[in-house]
This record gives sequence, structure tokens and C-alpha cells, in this order.
Amino acid sequence: MELWFTEKQTEHYGITFNIKETLVVEQTDFQHLAIVDTVEFGRMLLLDGMVMTTVRDEFVYHEMVAHPALFTHPNPEHVLVVGGGDGGVIREVMKHPKVKKAVLVDIDGKVIEYSKKFLPEIAGELDNTRVEVIVGDGYMHIHEHKQAYDVIMVDSTEPVGPAVELFTKGFYQGISEALKEDGIFVAQTDNPWFKADLIRSVHRDVKEIFPITRVYGANIPTYPSGLWTFTMGSKKYDPLAVDESAIAELNTKYYSPRLHKAAFALPKLVEELLQD
Amino acid sequence: MELWFTEKQTEHYGITFNIKETLVVEQTDFQHLAIVDTVEFGRMLLLDGMVMTTVRDEFVYHEMVAHPALFTHPNPEHVLVVGGGDGGVIREVMKHPKVKKAVLVDIDGKVIEYSKKFLPEIAGELDNTRVEVIVGDGYMHIHEHKQAYDVIMVDSTEPVGPAVELFTKGFYQGISEALKEDGIFVAQTDNPWFKADLIRSVHRDVKEIFPITRVYGANIPTYPSGLWTFTMGSKKYDPLAVDESAIAELNTKYYSPRLHKAAFALPKLVEELLQD
Repeated sequence: MELWFTEKQTEHYGITFNIKETLVVEQTDFQHLAIVDTVEFGRMLLLDGMVMTTVRDEFVYHEMVAHPALFTHPNPEHVLVVGGGDGGVIREVMKHPKVKKAVLVDIDGKVIEYSKKFLPEIAGELDNTRVEVIVGDGYMHIHEHKQAYDVIMVDSTEPVGPAVELFTKGFYQGISEALKEDGIFVAQTDNPWFKADLIRSVHRDVKEIFPITRVYGANIPTYPSGLWTFTMGSKKYDPLAVDESAIAELNTKYYSPRLHKAAFALPKLVEELLQD
Repeated sequence: MELWFTEKQTEHYGITFNIKETLVVEQTDFQHLAIVDTVEFGRMLLLDGMVMTTVRDEFVYHEMVAHPALFTHPNPEHVLVVGGGDGGVIREVMKHPKVKKAVLVDIDGKVIEYSKKFLPEIAGELDNTRVEVIVGDGYMHIHEHKQAYDVIMVDSTEPVGPAVELFTKGFYQGISEALKEDGIFVAQTDNPWFKADLIRSVHRDVKEIFPITRVYGANIPTYPSGLWTFTMGSKKYDPLAVDESAIAELNTKYYSPRLHKAAFALPKLVEELLQD
């Protein structure tokens, strides 16, 4: 008997996976959590029925949240990750020797617990001595830590459930205040094919708060449309002014110094929605 | 009753579409052809059960086959499209006033006939007076037309069924001979996530024949992995040496002068498979 799991990525289309085994299915205090083992993509974390990450393609998302900002800031010593309880972004942050301390604040301790247990290749660096893991509210954390961070990364779910407040202008204002005077912020901002309004609205809000606002993209096979966007707000450093030849070649599978600026060259359909 | 069509994009994962209506289902002399109307992507052409194009996202593929090569060649007067019976690539080629004549050779007249009938927004330019449509064998055509073309584009299906010979070294050699002394060739070469071996093998073959070989990518939501590659072989002109500021701003939705070179900046997983 073949088992298939289908995520409706919009109401009318979806992605479907042949499943070997279901490892966890649980309603946490915040969301529905599942970890399944797929034939094609390996183990997969689902929150509220949406694919968050798979062992096969997780590196794209995690590298592309972490490295463009960390290679734009000349001295990213203190880093905050809001959300990201699976630990993938933290793993990439730990590849930067300049980072003295990274704090992860995820509201759902179950995501952290099950990721450590079932996704060790993703979550392994959560135990790094340079990492502090806090189970708590990211919104509250940033309001309690003024001018504390060089780089803040928002690795959230969609703006439904616990992540709703992470897509508000008040949150971006709080992030700006939690950053030092030359800080950089980056957030995942969904796909331009079916969530154009979300990207437009985040871009507009971030632009009102940060002097430098940039959007870049990456290919993620298991996310809707396969094209994902990230929005960066920066107080001082422009990711497009970076000298690519000076970027260190890390042990990555997607990001490279050659891709640093090219990732900001967007398809015309994305350029146009940012001009609205 | 909701109808859903699922394409298995590999043996173990797929894409699934809510279908409003089935317009054509026919076994032609060469392949299984279907046109269905989907809720999310509009009308969709399927060959041998694989999504070829949809009204919603077709522009990515068609623009990215046509424009990088046509904006690399300084004077692309004579253009050949092998395959591409839906007419989408021809529509993009017709946006270039320098093109005096474009020849389309598709082996399956039914693809042309049904595309004209059911996909007029894609196929409309097949009736342009600058276009000659030939129902025939592209492999034979190139062997019968030496030094005839400035640019040759291969818009084929996967290397199964009628397109098998379009992925052989003999075919690329024939293309080189059908091109003028400064000609450019481009072909769709599938996705790097599940068809790495195909890209590797095409790249190796093309590199042995053309002095300049380049691979670029584009996001196509309805194709496996959402990341598609194209391989370009050029006798003289390098797409990376183009002055982007001199590229005309066409009426496109994906390609832009800003994206011309950035499309050749590839994720590390693609870079690495090209080095094998």
C-alpha cells in the first residue's frame, strides 16, 4: 500500500509526496506538528499541514536566510533568530566565525524538541556553546532587547497561527529598535506567484523603517511555486555594495559569493510588484 | 465533484491540479496529448502526461528560451525553433525586430493544431508572416540546412518519446553545422534536482562542440523542482559579455535586461555538477 501526503499549496493546486513513515503527529500548544519520512525528500517537518523543511532541500532556505545578511554586515557578532526552531538557520549562522553569540527564540518548544530528535542533521548546532535557545515570544524578546543585535533573522511560518504578529509593521519597528545603529534584518516573505500582496505589504512597511530595503529570491522545490523571496532591511550596509571577491567560500550547497548579488536580480513579475 | 490531475514529477513526488474541464485527450502519431483547463494555472498542455505549458506561467519558459540568445547575438536575422509547436517561443522571437525569418519545425502537427485552437494567447504568432511552420523532423531539418541560421532554439520534451535524438551529441554537432560561423544554440535542459545526469551529459557534449558554453536557470512553478536550466552553445558571442544597459526593454514578464547576466549565476549545486 503506497501512502501519499498532499499539501494544497493554494486552494487549487498542491504538491504530493510518497511517504515511508510517520514519525510524529501532535497538536502542540501553538500549531499542528508532524514529522514524516518521504521517499524523495527524506524526513520532512510540517506545521499546520504546510511543509517547513525537508532533509533533501532544507539547505537552500537556511543558507539563504543566513548568508546574504551575514556577508553584508562587516562584523556580525550578535545574531538573533526569531522562529527557526528546527535549527537550520542557526547551523548556517554558526559557519561564521565572527558570530560570538546567536540567540534563537521560538515560541514552540516542541518544534525544537522534535527537530533535535528526528532531524539531527538540521538541528545539531542548537547545542553549540555560542547558541542560546529561548522558548518564548519573539515579539516580546525584541521589545525587551534594545540595540542588542547586529543581525536579526525572522524564520517564521506563514502569517497564520502563531506567526501573525511577525508580519506587522509594529514588529518591524521593534526589530529596528532591537538592532544596533548599523544592524540588518531579514525575513522570509513567501512567493511572488500566489502571495504577491504579502510581499508588497511587507516591502512597503520595511521601506518606511529601514533606509536600505532589498528583496532577493531562491529556488526551494518543496515550497509553493518553487520561488521564495526574502526581504532585507538594513540601517547602513547595502548587500549590493559588497565586494563579492572578498566573501569567504563557505561549505554551502546553494549560496556562493557568485550568487550574492545575482540573488537580488529578480524576475520582472517580482520587480513590478515591488514598485506598486 | 472535484477533479484533480496529478503529474508524478519523479516516481515519488508530484504536482496536483484542480481541473475544471478536459478539452482534448488524444494519442497522436508521436505522443499522448491532452489539454485541460485548471483552476489555478488556466489551460494546460500535457504531452505523455507531463506538463508542457500553462497559460499562467508559460511566459517564463518561453521568454527564457528566446531572449538570452537573441540579446547575445548582435544580428539574429534567421532563427530556427526545433519543437515548440505550441508557439510560445515563436511569440517571444517575434518581439525582436531584427529577426527577418523564424522557422518552426515540430514533428507533431497535432500540437500545433490544438495549440492554435485552444491556446491562442500562446500560439497566436505562428501565423505571423515572418514565421514558417514545418511539420517535420527537426533532426533531418538541421542536417539539410548547413550554415543557415543565426540562432537555433531547441524547445523539446524530455528525452523520452520523439525527443530522444534531440539530446544526443550527433544532434548538437548537426546544430553547429546548421548555424552560421557566429551562431548561437540554446536548449532546455531540465532541472538540477532530479536530472543532474542529463544536465551533466548535455553540458559535456555541448562543450566539446562549441567554444563558449553557458548554463542559466529560471523559476517555472509547474516544472519539477521549480528550477529549470537552459544550456547555450555559442561560436563567437558570450552572453556574459553583453552590455546589459544596451538591451532593449521588451514587453516581458520574467526576462529583463537586469536579469540577463544574473540568470547565469547558478546555485552551487548546479555549479558543482557542471564541473564533473
